[in-house]
Amino acid sequence: MKRIGILGCGRIGQVHAASVAASRRAQLAVVFDPFEAAGRPVGEAYGAVWTPDVDDVLNDDSIDAVIIASPTPTHIELMTRAVRNGKAVLCEKPIDLDLALVDACRDDLGELTDRVMLGFNRRFDPSFADVRARVSSGDIGDLEQLTIISRDPAAPPRQYVETSGGLFRDMMIHDFDMARFFLGDVAEVTALGANLISPEIADAGDIDGAVVSLRGVNGQLATITNSRRCAYGYDQRVEAFGELGMLEARNQHPTSVRLSTASTTESAPPIHHFFLDRYTPAYRAEFEAFLDCLETGTKPSPGFEDGRAALALADAAAESLRTGQTVRIG
Amino acid sequence: MKRIGILGCGRIGQVHAASVAASRRAQLAVVFDPFEAAGRPVGEAYGAVWTPDVDDVLNDDSIDAVIIASPTPTHIELMTRAVRNGKAVLCEKPIDLDLALVDACRDDLGELTDRVMLGFNRRFDPSFADVRARVSSGDIGDLEQLTIISRDPAAPPRQYVETSGGLFRDMMIHDFDMARFFLGDVAEVTALGANLISPEIADAGDIDGAVVSLRGVNGQLATITNSRRCAYGYDQRVEAFGELGMLEARNQHPTSVRLSTASTTESAPPIHHFFLDRYTPAYRAEFEAFLDCLETGTKPSPGFEDGRAALALADAAAESLRTGQTVRIG
Amino acid sequence: MKRIGILGCGRIGQVHAASVAASRRAQLAVVFDPFEAAGRPVGEAYGAVWTPDVDDVLNDDSIDAVIIASPTPTHIELMTRAVRNGKAVLCEKPIDLDLALVDACRDDLGELTDRVMLGFNRRFDPSFADVRARVSSGDIGDLEQLTIISRDPAAPPRQYVETSGGLFRDMMIHDFDMARFFLGDVAEVTALGANLISPEIADAGDIDGAVVSLRGVNGQLATITNSRRCAYGYDQRVEAFGELGMLEARNQHPTSVRLSTASTTESAPPIHHFFLDRYTPAYRAEFEAFLDCLETGTKPSPGFEDGRAALALADAAAESLRTGQTVRIG
Amino acid sequence: MKRIGILGCGRIGQVHAASVAASRRAQLAVVFDPFEAAGRPVGEAYGAVWTPDVDDVLNDDSIDAVIIASPTPTHIELMTRAVRNGKAVLCEKPIDLDLALVDACRDDLGELTDRVMLGFNRRFDPSFADVRARVSSGDIGDLEQLTIISRDPAAPPRQYVETSGGLFRDMMIHDFDMARFFLGDVAEVTALGANLISPEIADAGDIDGAVVSLRGVNGQLATITNSRRCAYGYDQRVEAFGELGMLEARNQHPTSVRLSTASTTESAPPIHHFFLDRYTPAYRAEFEAFLDCLETGTKPSPGFEDGRAALALADAAAESLRTGQTVRIG
Repeated sequence: MKRIGILGCGRIGQVHAASVAASRRAQLAVVFDPFEAAGRPVGEAYGAVWTPDVDDVLNDDSIDAVIIASPTPTHIELMTRAVRNGKAVLCEKPIDLDLALVDACRDDLGELTDRVMLGFNRRFDPSFADVRARVSSGDIGDLEQLTIISRDPAAPPRQYVETSGGLFRDMMIHDFDMARFFLGDVAEVTALGANLISPEIADAGDIDGAVVSLRGVNGQLATITNSRRCAYGYDQRVEAFGELGMLEARNQHPTSVRLSTASTTESAPPIHHFFLDRYTPAYRAEFEAFLDCLETGTKPSPGFEDGRAALALADAAAESLRTGQTVRIG
Repeated sequence: MKRIGILGCGRIGQVHAASVAASRRAQLAVVFDPFEAAGRPVGEAYGAVWTPDVDDVLNDDSIDAVIIASPTPTHIELMTRAVRNGKAVLCEKPIDLDLALVDACRDDLGELTDRVMLGFNRRFDPSFADVRARVSSGDIGDLEQLTIISRDPAAPPRQYVETSGGLFRDMMIHDFDMARFFLGDVAEVTALGANLISPEIADAGDIDGAVVSLRGVNGQLATITNSRRCAYGYDQRVEAFGELGMLEARNQHPTSVRLSTASTTESAPPIHHFFLDRYTPAYRAEFEAFLDCLETGTKPSPGFEDGRAALALADAAAESLRTGQTVRIG
Repeated sequence: MKRIGILGCGRIGQVHAASVAASRRAQLAVVFDPFEAAGRPVGEAYGAVWTPDVDDVLNDDSIDAVIIASPTPTHIELMTRAVRNGKAVLCEKPIDLDLALVDACRDDLGELTDRVMLGFNRRFDPSFADVRARVSSGDIGDLEQLTIISRDPAAPPRQYVETSGGLFRDMMIHDFDMARFFLGDVAEVTALGANLISPEIADAGDIDGAVVSLRGVNGQLATITNSRRCAYGYDQRVEAFGELGMLEARNQHPTSVRLSTASTTESAPPIHHFFLDRYTPAYRAEFEAFLDCLETGTKPSPGFEDGRAALALADAAAESLRTGQTVRIG
Repeated sequence: MKRIGILGCGRIGQVHAASVAASRRAQLAVVFDPFEAAGRPVGEAYGAVWTPDVDDVLNDDSIDAVIIASPTPTHIELMTRAVRNGKAVLCEKPIDLDLALVDACRDDLGELTDRVMLGFNRRFDPSFADVRARVSSGDIGDLEQLTIISRDPAAPPRQYVETSGGLFRDMMIHDFDMARFFLGDVAEVTALGANLISPEIADAGDIDGAVVSLRGVNGQLATITNSRRCAYGYDQRVEAFGELGMLEARNQHPTSVRLSTASTTESAPPIHHFFLDRYTPAYRAEFEAFLDCLETGTKPSPGFEDGRAALALADAAAESLRTGQTVRIG
């Protein structure tokens, strides 16, 4: 029974708390949040101690692993302290918004980064994971083209956009990781952005829609399409095309009900509204994979380098957007 | 180039005229209809002679085959004269509404019935035909259960109902033939009827919805569900279930467009509205199959006996409805 | 926090134990099973006491409710003792295989039957429940026809069949309840059965496939199709057809992945294999509905009378199968 | 009854001949092809004269319109002579592979280009046309993103590639026109190409797969994905995403049959194999639209300028591929 601490009790911290509670191999021992109103209810809901002092978690030798769900600027410091104190780490993306700081952390930690798993939850979505596994098994022969469509239901508020690092680092970073999940390393990035949805986002200097083209190091092509707003829910699709065929992970609906009337036929209900509905099984599977690594001592995947690589792609996309040129990756 | 005459230029006669015109192996030579307003335009549209005298067709030795699309009570007489005059016949269903008259015709014509094809067009629907062929190839192993759902878009007027022979003989007869297409001969029939749609139909002494259960001579079970009215179009589906799986022929839409909005996702357009849209390819394939028989001299299928058998099932269903008992055939 | 006892720790008892454990409003206090090998692991998995003595549960005033998941012949006695001791009861179907015993129990318990909920879990399947709710809201106008298809993945062993009460009482009873969920009371039943799958089942005097037609008291028609074996998984579908349209609850797949190759396109994975996969959310929702009744003191639905009515329909189907006649109810 | 001449009796000329024959408003009067083996059978099949001398068509005042289906290098000359001789023209794409020649033709013909319709048949596909019409009606609000996927079943032979102008001018030109159909004029083009399929194509200096990103003049984003080979058939899809939702035109199957077995469920047959199957209705509708223009004297759409604009986009994509830079149009 692994003893887990959660650092940060916001929305995503609560998602992880539920995953820990649902596991038969772990118990939620302690949750940290500087604000009692945020931390205490989470602790109580899952029978864990709440503390406003992060040292209570990081210095507690009985804690096997921590899940970092605090604001992005704190990730590197907490990660560093946790792995130095012998704990495994499941860290929410991104490691940091500044690639230079990520690289400095990499230099600082050296092999200790092998104890860090990055929270790219979509790799653990049963449908995406199945597509990936079947591509690996050769079900569609060599992979040649990848199409990723990812749209959030509603644009975030301006204040979120101002600190999020922008669409590429905050939203599309998941899709960059998904592209790397399929393609391996990426050689080229080309980005187009748009401001069609939210004047507030434009005012904050960010885009609200984008299409990015990628070439993998083995020559495969990929496109990523993002939108900050989607009327019919949380549009999350991946298509892998290869020599022998295609595998699609389609959107998912809360029920299998279809309606036919004089004006519509086989009409499905709206798809899952957002990541809490769509990716609950993914978060659970992610945490179980993290536990597997803890129990067997193997290096987690996706790991620190995957977190770094997705951020580097976001930076490259931003550069391509600025220059109108395809950016080649180092 | 086979020379074809059409007897009766109503709605179904016009469907056949279009099939003849579309074929490269036949030409529409003559159309008969007692009413000039009905017959002349059909003749003109397809470059054929119109005549109000059926003898002009039946006595014309240059005519290879006739398609009987006249009112049901005339079928037996026209069929009899045509085959006696050496012509092949494609006769619309039913042969007659009275099984005794059908049997008398059978006795009268003897082997000449081998020149008659019955117009059970649905056997030639590409989807139904494909399901049937794949069942025969063993794709789902031995057939065990069959589910037929067949709903017309709108109830016919009372005067049609009064002379049509009723739902079983007029509408479900197609489904009885479809059941026989899959099951072979039928051993047992059980019927339930309903009057939920049209008081006019009830007044005319008929039902407007029904479910009928069948057992084939080899023990397979089948259900047929009919409704005289269907809000979303012409509902025409068949499911064949067997030891190794299931084959479905689903409804068909005029386009492949799907709409997703805040209130609906993957919404398809209404299905084809009625048989003229849905079964155009079936009527063409039916006529081509008829031409195959003409050219090769083989006996057409479905033939006279299939027409008789479907009518016998309709009679059995009517008896079951009246008595509340399962009726055993043959 | 309601304290729950489970009586019987077999497969279905374990399903209920998981539902209790997943609820935030209940705790699993005690589990009864005469066999330590069956009961102790279930108790330990959920932190509950195991006892081989059912009196430890029934006489414990701290237990608010019991879930009866023991063999069918024990249901009436356990239910009777539990409600007399002031406990609410969630009882697995059927109440008993013998309608006379059910009626005697009804007479015996009187109003105490209002404390009993019957375990017709499918009413709580999110898709079936949604279809039912939308029919009630008038989305398809008045309901006219209902099509239920229900197929188990694999035939049970002969010894199960010998004591199960037969296909109608053991398997189709769920579909009879589903029919009543939509139609209300049923007026007529007609059954056809088949032996196409398992000689062992035939030897045991039972059928292995069936189609049953029903008429509701308001005139609607329904068909139920059952098979004891289904190659592609646990086929569980309902179609409700009404004046304004149709609502379908389709089969459900474990992922949204579709494969296209040279030989197949848009191929989905096999559907959920059996009820443990398909109906997990239904069992959870069922238990939450039971808790709602406990907390508010309202009479549970489906209740004792629903359990009785489904059994009466199974008996009627068996009679129709024997006599070849439509059986009128009540 | 418009009298039509077809110039060129290859595969695409035959497609047009069938469309003319199927129309009630036109007759195929004459077909030109320098090779008797190509031209004579087409003439005979449709009751038209064959001539090896193109002047027999262009100088025949009884011919109302010509369809240019000859090799690309002949298009400009034939088009020029035809419109100067008073004939309307339906010209297969592209006008020419050399944009300079197209511009010279434009200068030369002036307003006479208003008599030319370009053969971008996909605009007339019932599904694509319906998506376009519903976007125009506001069904999804303002259009924001467009996703076009277009894959041919099998790579063409090397000799075809050497003269076709390359993937952008030969294959993706249809998708460029489709993008313009939805976006209006295009402001920016960025291209990535790949050689993953056919060494022969690489040897010929062309790519065999590509993803191209576009920005419309109103700011909308689009991606086009092409592959020269697709195992499951002729993959032809368009998705239009807007403020209020999404409209998809999905692939189309020859039947509505779905197979479920132990290894697959709801498996559809391969999609239409190539454009002759998929786009037959589109070619017919295109010709009818051409006839509408002939009869009403209106300017055809898509017209000469649309043919020029699609070619300009192909050139821009080729430049982007060469330079690695986004190319701005106009």
